[in-house]
Amino acid sequence: MRHFISIADLDRAEALAVLDTAEQMAATQSRSIRKLPTLVGTTVVNLFMEDSTRTRISFEAAAKRLSADVINFSAKGSSLSKGESLKDTALTLQAMGADAVIVRSPSSGAAHLLAHAGWIDQPIINAGDGRHEHPTQAMLDAFTLRRHLTEGDPAGQDLAGRHVVIVGDVLHSRVARSNVLLLSMLGARVTLVAPPSLVPVGHGAWPCEVLYDLDEAIALAPDAVMMLRVQRERMIGGGFFPTPEEYSRRFCLTTERAARLPEHAIVMHPGPMNRGFEIAGDVADSERSVIVEQVGNGVSVRMAVLYHLLASTPQEG
Amino acid sequence: MRHFISIADLDRAEALAVLDTAEQMAATQSRSIRKLPTLVGTTVVNLFMEDSTRTRISFEAAAKRLSADVINFSAKGSSLSKGESLKDTALTLQAMGADAVIVRSPSSGAAHLLAHAGWIDQPIINAGDGRHEHPTQAMLDAFTLRRHLTEGDPAGQDLAGRHVVIVGDVLHSRVARSNVLLLSMLGARVTLVAPPSLVPVGHGAWPCEVLYDLDEAIALAPDAVMMLRVQRERMIGGGFFPTPEEYSRRFCLTTERAARLPEHAIVMHPGPMNRGFEIAGDVADSERSVIVEQVGNGVSVRMAVLYHLLASTPQEG
Amino acid sequence: MRHFISIADLDRAEALAVLDTAEQMAATQSRSIRKLPTLVGTTVVNLFMEDSTRTRISFEAAAKRLSADVINFSAKGSSLSKGESLKDTALTLQAMGADAVIVRSPSSGAAHLLAHAGWIDQPIINAGDGRHEHPTQAMLDAFTLRRHLTEGDPAGQDLAGRHVVIVGDVLHSRVARSNVLLLSMLGARVTLVAPPSLVPVGHGAWPCEVLYDLDEAIALAPDAVMMLRVQRERMIGGGFFPTPEEYSRRFCLTTERAARLPEHAIVMHPGPMNRGFEIAGDVADSERSVIVEQVGNGVSVRMAVLYHLLASTPQEG
Repeated sequence: MRHFISIADLDRAEALAVLDTAEQMAATQSRSIRKLPTLVGTTVVNLFMEDSTRTRISFEAAAKRLSADVINFSAKGSSLSKGESLKDTALTLQAMGADAVIVRSPSSGAAHLLAHAGWIDQPIINAGDGRHEHPTQAMLDAFTLRRHLTEGDPAGQDLAGRHVVIVGDVLHSRVARSNVLLLSMLGARVTLVAPPSLVPVGHGAWPCEVLYDLDEAIALAPDAVMMLRVQRERMIGGGFFPTPEEYSRRFCLTTERAARLPEHAIVMHPGPMNRGFEIAGDVADSERSVIVEQVGNGVSVRMAVLYHLLASTPQEG
Repeated sequence: MRHFISIADLDRAEALAVLDTAEQMAATQSRSIRKLPTLVGTTVVNLFMEDSTRTRISFEAAAKRLSADVINFSAKGSSLSKGESLKDTALTLQAMGADAVIVRSPSSGAAHLLAHAGWIDQPIINAGDGRHEHPTQAMLDAFTLRRHLTEGDPAGQDLAGRHVVIVGDVLHSRVARSNVLLLSMLGARVTLVAPPSLVPVGHGAWPCEVLYDLDEAIALAPDAVMMLRVQRERMIGGGFFPTPEEYSRRFCLTTERAARLPEHAIVMHPGPMNRGFEIAGDVADSERSVIVEQVGNGVSVRMAVLYHLLASTPQEG
Repeated sequence: MRHFISIADLDRAEALAVLDTAEQMAATQSRSIRKLPTLVGTTVVNLFMEDSTRTRISFEAAAKRLSADVINFSAKGSSLSKGESLKDTALTLQAMGADAVIVRSPSSGAAHLLAHAGWIDQPIINAGDGRHEHPTQAMLDAFTLRRHLTEGDPAGQDLAGRHVVIVGDVLHSRVARSNVLLLSMLGARVTLVAPPSLVPVGHGAWPCEVLYDLDEAIALAPDAVMMLRVQRERMIGGGFFPTPEEYSRRFCLTTERAARLPEHAIVMHPGPMNRGFEIAGDVADSERSVIVEQVGNGVSVRMAVLYHLLASTPQEG
């Protein structure tokens, strides 16, 4: 693994190896001294071309726990916003000695371009690019699922035979796309649930089923339900569904719907949530919700990804 | 002390203990190596929901001197500004392994809510919430007063018998409120001076006197005069006083007024100053001004607060 | 050297000493552990009163490689933007224990004022002030020139007998001004090329020639051509030249023009580039371009400047 742009950069064995490393990282986080010397002398750049405080902080915490130096580069007000090309930004970061670049972009494919255009030799990590992918989110979701849905030590195990339902704005969701790829690679059955207007064209080629009715999906007794954030700013006037109320009535994970899930089933959400819109506040705070765990697991998984990309080879300027 | 939200979180003995620790911290800052290993492996989050570069930097410097990792979280452009609840932000920071959260908010009570709603187990430090409190500012003011107004080693001493006059926009000032509570707890006599329109309703219950005339207060020969920042943006059209000139004429600490203070009396200001408006530039730069010292003391006091909240117990994930 | 505000703060021997230290710093950056303990316990403040992510990151990387703590202070949304004086900001940073302040300002002379007004005792480094100077940029340019245009070990060598052509918006360029001073001090011949409307009044006193025709300058067979960024936002409606196309036709370093340079001549640009406007993309990416090297050299030179200002004396609070 030289970069981490897409779930497609990993095969099943590599995905399991990263998840297993993440288990080890998680174990270090409960010690009295949590900081590891692994990446001392390494510089990690957070190149954020759109705001995402939550993701930026998660990567920053992960890198600092490994003793890397972190430089935050928000594209707002930078040369990038003054028309500098992504190419020149990449060459600049490489020349300054960045050992890895974590990139968030509103443009699908920006991370891939950074990794493969030949501008930069260092590892690129995709922290979300447009509607394309958000692979570390999928990894932390798989990590969380594995911890809850496997028996005994999760290390080495996959998600064979588990059934995960992903609900909501699949069309705009890089989280959904990365999860479909990863979870199916790990052996899980994946069902997407969305109104027809929010299912991407071409989903027929995805390794999953699509349903248009949440109640029908719940009746399948899934092991996990992952609610997606509805980006309401994209909905207004977009014609994606008649009214917010109509969406919420049909696709919100209400208390009543959650009660129909199998007892062992967990509820997930990548955050930030619209409480009361796509998920009832009570459900988000219920016993079966693992939403807060997902956040903590995000730090462990990102530590593992940084470790696999940076710690196996000696750093050279 | 589990959190530091309000001066009311401390009793007199605890307040003195923090001030005494701050003296020790200040002593370390004059050594050739100022950095202490105390909080290695600890992550401190600066959650700033309103701009305050000065306060943010002071906490950041304090945490870094104790070897903590610092993550800055400006709510601008974050999920919080996109409608995420404070609850979910709190749960997120806790899950990411924040060991303490320093919070600045335009809403009175936000820090209290964070500390006591049960969302987060880690210490919360109030870095200013609306018109409510700014307790570390009061602590650094008390620290500064103690250094100047007591004889011999300040450690262990309180402010019994000292008289502090606080002048200006008391109505909007969390600094005034925290200082009234702390200084009176430490035995000082406190007099507020403000136009009637800028005195809060209910001040009758506060442990202090109120005057409406600065010259009358100066005639009392106080040991210290603390000028508050006038937040002119709140004044315009607010009907709080007829004109800025009128305010300045009656409540500015001019050179002439400062000359009538006792020789030993000190002049304070929490910054940033409106030179020439609430305080004459000459007075701010005079021998009796301790305004710059207050800033340096702020770092020592914040180191002490972090020490008391974080260093006595082992860190656990 | 107590501050680094202007190239005039250095004599030839000091400039060479800093360049030689930068060579040593560059050598450390190719080791497996790049971080040096030199500035442990030191706090460096990046005070940026205008956006410049590229320069800020370069200084931040340099300081962190030397193990300093770095605090970023963007004046946007800070007290400075609310009317606090530069004096009070300076006093505040000093009081908080800043060991050095790196300052970027839209105002020519701001760095000089900070260094010499007596507000602050610590070293000030000018990271670009208005149209005045950008001395670390000139140092990295000299460093890059020396590496390419001298024989054998560059240490100790100057640029005697070399000819550097600087092309473009000289009027608005602090880079040009600092380079003219430094390169001529190091023995180089400097030729400025610009349209008459973009040559500063008073250039007659500068130690360089001025030409108004790029082709004429290329015919002189220079050893290096340094293209300046055209700040197009200043040009629109400014009457500096008839049209952008006209500027580009006469002053762009096109592939055809670059081909007429001597084989050994290098092409430089401080970045960010307007590819296709002042420099052809092909030229920027060609063998003779050292533009990316300049960026990397920037970190080494800034490490050397921090070293000379901070590491020779013990840190005291």
